[in-house]
Amino acid sequence: METWRTAIVDAGPDHIRVRGRDLLELMRGATFTDLIFLMHHERLPTPAERRLIDAILIGSADHGPGAPSCAAARLAASGNRQSPSAAIAAGVLTIGDEHGGAGWSCMNLIVAALERARREALPLDEAARRVVDDARTARTRLPGFGHRVHATIDPRVDVLFGLAEESGLAGDGVRFVRALERAIRDLIKPLPINIDGALAAILVDLGFPPMTGLLLFVVARVAGISAEVLEEYLREQPMRIRIPAEYDGVPPENIADC
Amino acid sequence: METWRTAIVDAGPDHIRVRGRDLLELMRGATFTDLIFLMHHERLPTPAERRLIDAILIGSADHGPGAPSCAAARLAASGNRQSPSAAIAAGVLTIGDEHGGAGWSCMNLIVAALERARREALPLDEAARRVVDDARTARTRLPGFGHRVHATIDPRVDVLFGLAEESGLAGDGVRFVRALERAIRDLIKPLPINIDGALAAILVDLGFPPMTGLLLFVVARVAGISAEVLEEYLREQPMRIRIPAEYDGVPPENIADC
Amino acid sequence: METWRTAIVDAGPDHIRVRGRDLLELMRGATFTDLIFLMHHERLPTPAERRLIDAILIGSADHGPGAPSCAAARLAASGNRQSPSAAIAAGVLTIGDEHGGAGWSCMNLIVAALERARREALPLDEAARRVVDDARTARTRLPGFGHRVHATIDPRVDVLFGLAEESGLAGDGVRFVRALERAIRDLIKPLPINIDGALAAILVDLGFPPMTGLLLFVVARVAGISAEVLEEYLREQPMRIRIPAEYDGVPPENIADC
Amino acid sequence: METWRTAIVDAGPDHIRVRGRDLLELMRGATFTDLIFLMHHERLPTPAERRLIDAILIGSADHGPGAPSCAAARLAASGNRQSPSAAIAAGVLTIGDEHGGAGWSCMNLIVAALERARREALPLDEAARRVVDDARTARTRLPGFGHRVHATIDPRVDVLFGLAEESGLAGDGVRFVRALERAIRDLIKPLPINIDGALAAILVDLGFPPMTGLLLFVVARVAGISAEVLEEYLREQPMRIRIPAEYDGVPPENIADC
Repeated sequence: METWRTAIVDAGPDHIRVRGRDLLELMRGATFTDLIFLMHHERLPTPAERRLIDAILIGSADHGPGAPSCAAARLAASGNRQSPSAAIAAGVLTIGDEHGGAGWSCMNLIVAALERARREALPLDEAARRVVDDARTARTRLPGFGHRVHATIDPRVDVLFGLAEESGLAGDGVRFVRALERAIRDLIKPLPINIDGALAAILVDLGFPPMTGLLLFVVARVAGISAEVLEEYLREQPMRIRIPAEYDGVPPENIADC
Repeated sequence: METWRTAIVDAGPDHIRVRGRDLLELMRGATFTDLIFLMHHERLPTPAERRLIDAILIGSADHGPGAPSCAAARLAASGNRQSPSAAIAAGVLTIGDEHGGAGWSCMNLIVAALERARREALPLDEAARRVVDDARTARTRLPGFGHRVHATIDPRVDVLFGLAEESGLAGDGVRFVRALERAIRDLIKPLPINIDGALAAILVDLGFPPMTGLLLFVVARVAGISAEVLEEYLREQPMRIRIPAEYDGVPPENIADC
Repeated sequence: METWRTAIVDAGPDHIRVRGRDLLELMRGATFTDLIFLMHHERLPTPAERRLIDAILIGSADHGPGAPSCAAARLAASGNRQSPSAAIAAGVLTIGDEHGGAGWSCMNLIVAALERARREALPLDEAARRVVDDARTARTRLPGFGHRVHATIDPRVDVLFGLAEESGLAGDGVRFVRALERAIRDLIKPLPINIDGALAAILVDLGFPPMTGLLLFVVARVAGISAEVLEEYLREQPMRIRIPAEYDGVPPENIADC
Repeated sequence: METWRTAIVDAGPDHIRVRGRDLLELMRGATFTDLIFLMHHERLPTPAERRLIDAILIGSADHGPGAPSCAAARLAASGNRQSPSAAIAAGVLTIGDEHGGAGWSCMNLIVAALERARREALPLDEAARRVVDDARTARTRLPGFGHRVHATIDPRVDVLFGLAEESGLAGDGVRFVRALERAIRDLIKPLPINIDGALAAILVDLGFPPMTGLLLFVVARVAGISAEVLEEYLREQPMRIRIPAEYDGVPPENIADC
């Protein structure tokens, strides 16, 4: 018999438990953010942890309709009015390494660097300089730094780090990302920490696995995409979105016979 | 120039506003549920409204890995390990009229029936009986009633209606759905209100547009799908899911030449 | 045990059969178009039928990168470089009632009208006039007529109808769509048959079920989307696509406290 | 102005060209396989090349409803009856590195090995042994070898290689994959070339870029998925697919307070 195991939900005719906890109790007293934390982390958050995750989810939910996630969702809602979930899925599919996925890469980077610092007894500043050196040698980008719109500093980063520090939850993750910002400034050029870098640092300090750097962005962004799809259905005409494109391929006269 | 208008987010280099409100303030003091409410409703919730939406989102987030949404997400994570967002999208795509979408249909039904009751000055019990009569004549199902797993009553329904009544937020939506349950029992057979029917009634009473009956289910369920995908990536082997199927089509010998 | 039945493929360790036919024989002697026909129709095409389906698939495969299907696929490829199939899926999701789906609606309309003409012994011209009258009364659009780009006649329509008539395969479907064009011209205004209307008429005459009006468009368009995604990956920078949008929602000063 | 460039389709009000060729001419005389070749390769195929691509597309279109692509599509069609394209997209999303994507990895491997053989003037057998040695050292799998269902040899492989050799199109790609099969047998254990390995070898010999190892599989498989979705809509009840799963997570009694 085909079965699969799960450690998240246990649903029978008389009960539904999430990681062993009674769903009905959670419905009566917990917040949706508590549940998101529990499902991705195996325990419920403290109030200070909940505050941080709320701030991360709110800060990632939307960034205007020009973001690929919202634009693709609106395009799908424009051509296919049969299924709002199809439009939401189209938006989700634009999320990856280049859009909303830097948090995952950045968490992998932080976890590896902290591990190395521990193993080799390096101070964080030294560990950060080595990461920057390695990236320069390999000519790779450092995820979590720089932003297309916010040239100097994304104001959401200040809020996230402020909340983490006020509550005493900022740990080696936040410290390492700040050390990395200094090392990038000294060895390459000033590049501000972006929202992906900030949430990556905090999620490491809260003990989340690296893939949640992408997953919590998706969970947050779906709220924004859903609202954009609602607006597109309720307020806009189908097929209104026309994106100009110009042809620069093979000209008609240059066709070789085959 | 190609543009599109939006009423949700206004993001410039120096500010991000959600429906006119400062995103940074929301990050500091609001919950993710507040933001979901604001984006789909144009204002922030009262504490009692927030409690209800939290309960709805928690109650809809997951229902075990056998639900089509989670099963499809795990299948995609099993075959395509390159993109967690692809697996989440595959799960979202199973959500529609038959799975998670009854809330939308039920909200449409409630809104139309309340409108008719007002116009024709009908008591709610009479309006409910007419809806049941119409459904019997047209041989259509009544969305929001009956459940595959919970034969009697889904315990989540009691929690939702209990919270709505304690807080004084239960209005004509809840009253009408209860009247409909009585009319179905008297005219057809006893069929319990399911979670879709309960959330539909409450969302009507909170002033949400009908499509949110589906959209808030998607927002909630993505949290559960995301956790199932995380587990599939971290704990399971690729391509482990094999679903048995048997062929019952054209036999080899019966092929006509064409 | 969970199983599902299928009438399409029968695959064991020693054989693979498609609708009862040996897959290896098909690989040696059939065309991909033959297989598409067989899978959606239960038999292989004649040479003339194959020519028509080839023309339909070629004519629907792409219509430039501004089409929602290609634009959404390129947006996904721009943000998520981890999975080409995610980008193709994003393109597919834009296909529905408003984009690429008119063929389905048009086939439903033709089948219903031909059925009515037979039942009521109406000439096709009279049946067409009744369809136009009904659409005017109900204020609904007639699928398969009019086009955003081609104001007069889409040249692909002439090719399809030309092939259908040369080969003697044009039947009541084609005749009815032409009658409908005349009725629209006389009762509303001249509106040319578009590619969806042409393929709908021909697919009805070839005996395909109405949903293939959408499905064959998807099969064809995936070839075009795939090529656009290949080009986006091989030639373009990630996150290059920025779609301008302007905010026209709630202004900051108008926020009511709640 | 936002634009994007394309080299595939050039569509104006009076013409549609695909890579510089007149679409109407293609509709009149080419096959869908010709168009797929043209869009992914920049030229039309010879008759022998067309035969090979037809065989690859036919051989990849479906492998029974237990394949993740078909299973996910049927699950989506079972829960969401509003949009056939949503079901097709759910199927496409399961295609990746583990399902249908080995052709891409295998083409990358072949191209790199042939490049190295040329650079270092190695015979193909020696180049193959080095690839196997490297994979053993790095403990990575060799894409294109072994199959879940076909323990010995997938009969589709014989057909593909037979067609390639009869037509004289088999080149270094096919020779290298055969050398690799011998090296795997000698250095590890006998593992048959599978369909992904066969199509990868042939696509390399025809001059296609490596990503087409995945893309042409998607184009082919969408034909099969589409037929499975059609059958699910026309013949089956919604929500019929229930996949058994068993809970093996945190037991209720083991919950620590937090």
